[in-house]
Amino acid sequence: MPNKDTPTAASEENLLLCEELIECGRDFHRRGWSLGTSSNYSVVTEREPLTLLMTGSGFDKGRLRPEQFVTVDEKARALKPDGLKPSSEALLHTVLAKHGAGAVLHTHSVAATVLSEHFLKDGGVRLSGYEMLKGLSGISTHESEAWIEIYPNTQEIASLATVISLRLNDAARPLRHGFLMAGHGLYTWGRNIAEARRQVEVLEFLLEVVTQKRLLFGSF
Amino acid sequence: MPNKDTPTAASEENLLLCEELIECGRDFHRRGWSLGTSSNYSVVTEREPLTLLMTGSGFDKGRLRPEQFVTVDEKARALKPDGLKPSSEALLHTVLAKHGAGAVLHTHSVAATVLSEHFLKDGGVRLSGYEMLKGLSGISTHESEAWIEIYPNTQEIASLATVISLRLNDAARPLRHGFLMAGHGLYTWGRNIAEARRQVEVLEFLLEVVTQKRLLFGSF
Amino acid sequence: MPNKDTPTAASEENLLLCEELIECGRDFHRRGWSLGTSSNYSVVTEREPLTLLMTGSGFDKGRLRPEQFVTVDEKARALKPDGLKPSSEALLHTVLAKHGAGAVLHTHSVAATVLSEHFLKDGGVRLSGYEMLKGLSGISTHESEAWIEIYPNTQEIASLATVISLRLNDAARPLRHGFLMAGHGLYTWGRNIAEARRQVEVLEFLLEVVTQKRLLFGSF
Amino acid sequence: MPNKDTPTAASEENLLLCEELIECGRDFHRRGWSLGTSSNYSVVTEREPLTLLMTGSGFDKGRLRPEQFVTVDEKARALKPDGLKPSSEALLHTVLAKHGAGAVLHTHSVAATVLSEHFLKDGGVRLSGYEMLKGLSGISTHESEAWIEIYPNTQEIASLATVISLRLNDAARPLRHGFLMAGHGLYTWGRNIAEARRQVEVLEFLLEVVTQKRLLFGSF
Repeated sequence: MPNKDTPTAASEENLLLCEELIECGRDFHRRGWSLGTSSNYSVVTEREPLTLLMTGSGFDKGRLRPEQFVTVDEKARALKPDGLKPSSEALLHTVLAKHGAGAVLHTHSVAATVLSEHFLKDGGVRLSGYEMLKGLSGISTHESEAWIEIYPNTQEIASLATVISLRLNDAARPLRHGFLMAGHGLYTWGRNIAEARRQVEVLEFLLEVVTQKRLLFGSF
Repeated sequence: MPNKDTPTAASEENLLLCEELIECGRDFHRRGWSLGTSSNYSVVTEREPLTLLMTGSGFDKGRLRPEQFVTVDEKARALKPDGLKPSSEALLHTVLAKHGAGAVLHTHSVAATVLSEHFLKDGGVRLSGYEMLKGLSGISTHESEAWIEIYPNTQEIASLATVISLRLNDAARPLRHGFLMAGHGLYTWGRNIAEARRQVEVLEFLLEVVTQKRLLFGSF
Repeated sequence: MPNKDTPTAASEENLLLCEELIECGRDFHRRGWSLGTSSNYSVVTEREPLTLLMTGSGFDKGRLRPEQFVTVDEKARALKPDGLKPSSEALLHTVLAKHGAGAVLHTHSVAATVLSEHFLKDGGVRLSGYEMLKGLSGISTHESEAWIEIYPNTQEIASLATVISLRLNDAARPLRHGFLMAGHGLYTWGRNIAEARRQVEVLEFLLEVVTQKRLLFGSF
Repeated sequence: MPNKDTPTAASEENLLLCEELIECGRDFHRRGWSLGTSSNYSVVTEREPLTLLMTGSGFDKGRLRPEQFVTVDEKARALKPDGLKPSSEALLHTVLAKHGAGAVLHTHSVAATVLSEHFLKDGGVRLSGYEMLKGLSGISTHESEAWIEIYPNTQEIASLATVISLRLNDAARPLRHGFLMAGHGLYTWGRNIAEARRQVEVLEFLLEVVTQKRLLFGSF
């Protein structure tokens, strides 16, 4: 018999969270940031024990349905073995959630793909002096800069998750705002879905700005 | 007891104005001109005393709701202290409204961000010889030109508001059509929301034209 | 007392034609081909005497309403003096209608603006070898080419209308498919609205192709 | 009297398949991948005898209606001679269907047009090292690469269909994923409409990536 306190995808509140992620998917797909079956999105539904609602693997992000979300535990294991597989990158979501994120959004735009591949050699891309930076959590003036780290793309997500965890907990120079996987796309997060969505829009906008500057003036 | 003549956001007419600004936000967000929580919009609801309805700070412009607008006075102070904060740039709106604008729209596109940063050294960008210029209020032939001034971006909005006020009242060569803040975006205005929206579309279009010309032919 | 045979914008059939043009405007505005109050559209509602339904001057093409259309005669004079002004370019529509067009669509895209300005010196732009050419009326293989003539932009529409009329009736090498006005945009037409709309899409697509080829390979 | 087993466009199931292709058309048209009357789409409705439901020739792909689909046999002949003509490229669809495809989608984007023309001399375009490749059927790691073959554009579809058939059955190095026709566009397919649509999104995305890399860094 299931524990009554266990959140279920069918529960009212979770359904609202699904709807919010479905709306993200619709908009990101329309913009070309979540084409094919790329991207994955999650939201924390419970802190103790850590529980996330996450897009299942292989679905069209432009037309998600509530039954295409899967509930996972802190180790990214599906809680209800109903055949739905969490995204292969689920461990990145749980690592971010453990570190405090309430929602994690991974997008896969053309700009993020191309720039992350190019700047991998530098380890990241610097976004500096733009008003739009103020849209990132914890930044209140355009005189700041954001350093978005880039990691080599990998199919060994567990190893990358360990690296990300260490970087998040780096006391001196912690990973912030989001990160890129080379030739792959952007991970960002927020306290809730609205904040994570804002981060996606800000970072994808700034990657477009970096692209346009290079195209217009030959430098970044 | 509130003055019955005080416009309230709940009043019928103000609700219609909110709806018009909400529709602007939906369209600008879709086009990528108001991503993150960038941009802010306002409309004058009363001339004596000057009263504006303005987007509150920090909301998603693609999905504004009437309760996310705040009523401000000529000094950009919220009239109803219900916790809603006007945009930090509210003073720019009131300065423009005092000068006669009935609606002010601030957008934040990639083209405006990149070009305003590049042309800051020249103090502005010249738009010349385009039929689309006829869409700007007060221009009736494509043989005109518009000079769109650019100001350094700043978080000291009061100082910038003073500069803008002086430029608007400059008898010899007054500020017209709109202005850019470097690395930030476009301010424009009109007698009403429809005219201000037309100005946004015309100016954002022409900034795209300038961008494409440079990309294609290596010059502006 | 009005002649019962005079078509009125209120009549059932004309309302359907208005709806079709409204839908064109919504789509073209969304794509950025009819921003500001640029563009104008018309459809022939009667051949004898020649009568057109045409967008009035100065309206937002993304949200046209039936009452924003005006009925004009063969000289582009408004039939019902109800204060609605036909577009200043109305004579271009009537010239095309006299030559057989059932619908005329004028769009104003970034690509058309930039390329028409650049290629004015050559008198036109050549579109050659593309499968998409088959979408133009009268072309059945991609081995054809279309020569889209470009005219200097002008506010003296009557003179341009005379030139266009002569070019349409040029027995040896008649004007076909559409034409560009430099720094302004595209005129094209068809037997009905659907055909004219198809021509717009084909030509705007091919202008994008020309743009991309130049950007990628440095030549046209 | 019609054979009761013959699928008809009016039948319930076929109507659902039409709706799915109509939705593809709406989305591809919106993105600019199916403008004019370009593109054509099909789905297999029966294996024995092979029967396909296919877009008729010359329709606007953004607003398809169920009655604009035609049922064809394995030789691409219209089963019901009701005046509706299958696309002139119908034989490419039946060849792919015979080889196992359950749905075939042909799109016609700017990127596919320009790149297919440029890379024709190389016989194909290599897509290598991108995470998005995992969205192609049969690829499970970004360390793969896809070779998308390019054929000269032709109006002799029967000859091209023979070539494609041979390439599909090439035991050593069979044609996979999709192919381009130079200056024309992309053909791709899947077991069903959803899979074919995913293939379109993945390949169009990667052609955009190739375009952006060349624009930014001068090489492919």
